[in-house]
Amino acid sequence: MRLSLILAGLACAAPGSAEPAHQTPAEVIAAAPAAEWRAIDPADLLVIDFADGGRSIIQLAPSFAPVHVANIRALAKSGYWAKGAAIYRVQDNYVTQWGLNEAQVPLPAGVVKLPPAEYLRDLTGEAASDRGVKLAPFADSYADKAGFLENWPVAVHASGKSVSIPHCYAYVGVARDLAPDTGMGGELYAVIGHAPRQLDRNIAIVGRVVDGMDRLSARPRGQGALGIYDNRASDIPIASVRLASDISVADRPAYEMMDQASPSFARYLHLRANRRDAFYEMPAGGVDICNAPVPIRKKAS
Amino acid sequence: MRLSLILAGLACAAPGSAEPAHQTPAEVIAAAPAAEWRAIDPADLLVIDFADGGRSIIQLAPSFAPVHVANIRALAKSGYWAKGAAIYRVQDNYVTQWGLNEAQVPLPAGVVKLPPAEYLRDLTGEAASDRGVKLAPFADSYADKAGFLENWPVAVHASGKSVSIPHCYAYVGVARDLAPDTGMGGELYAVIGHAPRQLDRNIAIVGRVVDGMDRLSARPRGQGALGIYDNRASDIPIASVRLASDISVADRPAYEMMDQASPSFARYLHLRANRRDAFYEMPAGGVDICNAPVPIRKKAS
Repeated sequence: MRLSLILAGLACAAPGSAEPAHQTPAEVIAAAPAAEWRAIDPADLLVIDFADGGRSIIQLAPSFAPVHVANIRALAKSGYWAKGAAIYRVQDNYVTQWGLNEAQVPLPAGVVKLPPAEYLRDLTGEAASDRGVKLAPFADSYADKAGFLENWPVAVHASGKSVSIPHCYAYVGVARDLAPDTGMGGELYAVIGHAPRQLDRNIAIVGRVVDGMDRLSARPRGQGALGIYDNRASDIPIASVRLASDISVADRPAYEMMDQASPSFARYLHLRANRRDAFYEMPAGGVDICNAPVPIRKKAS
Repeated sequence: MRLSLILAGLACAAPGSAEPAHQTPAEVIAAAPAAEWRAIDPADLLVIDFADGGRSIIQLAPSFAPVHVANIRALAKSGYWAKGAAIYRVQDNYVTQWGLNEAQVPLPAGVVKLPPAEYLRDLTGEAASDRGVKLAPFADSYADKAGFLENWPVAVHASGKSVSIPHCYAYVGVARDLAPDTGMGGELYAVIGHAPRQLDRNIAIVGRVVDGMDRLSARPRGQGALGIYDNRASDIPIASVRLASDISVADRPAYEMMDQASPSFARYLHLRANRRDAFYEMPAGGVDICNAPVPIRKKAS
């Protein structure tokens, strides 16, 4: 068996150079100092426990979809999803979707039934200091440019006046019916295949899976239309959905993300586009925004 | 439950127009006449049957990686993989890999142990009529251009002098150790996540999964390094690997692909980049080459 498909060569220092030659992106992440990492707010972590074991954890994006995220927090706090939510759809190379039939369970107070269409973030009204989009120096097939804002990937529109989070692998959106419905937040999906970026600017992206992605991606595909399980007995029950901030500090999972403004992030992004470690003969010279995921790791407790 | 995340509105004809308005890509595929489809040669179909049931079928790409594909055909004909091959690696958002430990089973006659590096197809020596690359009018993050050749997606290099098949979802490559090894073909992998196109031009792509992708993508992820199953008892045994051309005509699976030169393909590609059916408020205006898969379907027998 061949173990080296992506097994990197060990970093070796070039003579007379302070920078290790042939470094891999993973080595850059491992070597990044503590000061280059930003803790993720526990109120932004949605912890999903499945009845059959295992856990998926989603980082919410309140600055991109504030009303939808407020809804999701209210639903989690009220125990809404514990009243029968399940994974009911797994469509190969597309999405795993879960939630609760809204008609059957009353919504908790404070949930906005028809949130605004938070598909695009308008930066023109924001203070200049907040508009710190770090552009990636590579072409994007869908937008003027792509880059990063607040350690989230963004597609950049209208010469930087607005941005949207792309539908990358592991990104989470709010299922909806036809417009003007925008989805209340009770039914969510995660991307489990190649980025379906035709959905960008058509759906509210509310976060990304930061751990336990396999509990969503490795599920049996549904055989019904759109990957819906054609038998309700196939649904995969969710035991509970909580915010990490509502879990006792001792039991609370914690994560941190690499600061997009850090030297290590710049180096990581460069290497995602220019692999020169031992396995690679020909560096690509570019990378698409969904193939350079922001490094996120479990925080040592 | 919301069923409409990608459920298209039905096509409705615009008054006075011969072209249906708001058509979906799926509707274009369904309406494409028989003359726009090309049968896939049964000698290009590799049929993998798993011991636990189910089947994955791979279309080989002999015109892109002739020596590797010849090896794979020789291995299949000799029953090589039936001597203990298994899925032994499933790395989330990357690859599912299978094969046989080469050290344990003698190779059949005719297999080239060190094939040439068929990572790039040089078009300069080909007859002009063969160089019919259909360019996609969208930016590519990795190459000068992207397009299609012989109904395969290609990244276009050196102003069209050479092309490579990109590492799209469901595409199959030959595992290898460090260069000059190129992989003999006995160990293969399929992409099960966002296209890892840093591998383009570094590995021989030999085909794509045309059916039964879920038998590769929905497997439990390996917990060892690189997604290797850390216990050999977790390996998923392969019962047999045959060419469709070696299966009796009555039992032989058959597939066809849409002709890249057909009007339906042009319409399909346009719509993959410009969704205007009922669900979509904002067409993307572009699409990346891995998000516009060549339509392939089981052929009515």
